[in-house]
Amino acid sequence: MLRLYDFLDSGNGYKVRLLLMQLAIPYELTEVDILSGQTRTPEFLARNPNGRIPLLELEDGSRLAESNAILFFLAEGTPMLAQDRWQRGQVLQWMFFEQYSHEPNIATSRFLLRHTAADDPRRALLPAKKTAGEAALGVMEGHLCRHTWFVGERYGIADIALYAYTHVADEGGFDLQPYAAIRAWMDRVRSQPSHKPITSR
Amino acid sequence: MLRLYDFLDSGNGYKVRLLLMQLAIPYELTEVDILSGQTRTPEFLARNPNGRIPLLELEDGSRLAESNAILFFLAEGTPMLAQDRWQRGQVLQWMFFEQYSHEPNIATSRFLLRHTAADDPRRALLPAKKTAGEAALGVMEGHLCRHTWFVGERYGIADIALYAYTHVADEGGFDLQPYAAIRAWMDRVRSQPSHKPITSR
Repeated sequence: MLRLYDFLDSGNGYKVRLLLMQLAIPYELTEVDILSGQTRTPEFLARNPNGRIPLLELEDGSRLAESNAILFFLAEGTPMLAQDRWQRGQVLQWMFFEQYSHEPNIATSRFLLRHTAADDPRRALLPAKKTAGEAALGVMEGHLCRHTWFVGERYGIADIALYAYTHVADEGGFDLQPYAAIRAWMDRVRSQPSHKPITSR
Repeated sequence: MLRLYDFLDSGNGYKVRLLLMQLAIPYELTEVDILSGQTRTPEFLARNPNGRIPLLELEDGSRLAESNAILFFLAEGTPMLAQDRWQRGQVLQWMFFEQYSHEPNIATSRFLLRHTAADDPRRALLPAKKTAGEAALGVMEGHLCRHTWFVGERYGIADIALYAYTHVADEGGFDLQPYAAIRAWMDRVRSQPSHKPITSR
């Protein structure tokens, strides 16, 4: 059986848990507390030298890191990822956008506000992340004003990748009220079969 | 013919130019000066709402952004990208690692040192980026001590994605002398057929 090393509050981990649920793939969960340094122990670093969750482990012990790489691997050959080469390029475009322009601003702001003290010097980064995160939300809003889903007019892993931290953006200090198309899209994501909330196993 | 919107000093753009050369795919280059704001004009934002290069445009006007998504799209069905599903997962793992753990530290340090004034407040980010960038180089070094290439023991787009900013890491204040395996791998990359340097068209 697949094993997922994960932290339940992580949106990156949630992407994988949500896809596994929606593909009806059974797996065992090993919780790793990123707040107490469990991703930086010698034991965990032997599994993922980059010291991050989520990490997928196959029965033969092979391992795959990076949430969006795991999504792509799991979704190949399923309705959650297009077969068409151009559409696959678009899926990857949105997933790289998510990891470069969205997650480092919106997810990191959420982490800083939830898990650091009010006087933590890293909070000096919040204003710049607010600006950049709002720019990312603007790009999403523009796309969703014209499209039902991110790629190919059907729900898939690009939607899962972007939903994970967008739907908890308020916890990072982002107000989604001005983004009507994003809010309507989030409702569509939540209405998909076998949807489940972020901290569920 | 394909059109590539690009800035010749960009490592992200170089990835695409190097792959196009090595796949012998002809293209037209439209240079976009990111330093003078040419990626933020209404005209460019109509092409890529996220305001970044490289941007690939097909003959029918369709467009694809995000350097590593472009690499994957161009390489599908060629020897530069494995057909095997697990190996493709590994390729994506390293490309997401590059965009999340490597590029924001090493490439951004290079940008700050080359294109901002000595008293630019953004340079306050440099010490944290030095630490995180060295951690990323350490992950690469560990892998390359045991492997010739990043995935499947053959040269491919994961190598191109990681070479682009690693080989100019010194311009970001990173000393590669301690990383013997990375230096040997860079020599192997440079010895591939049709290799070309970063600012060539």
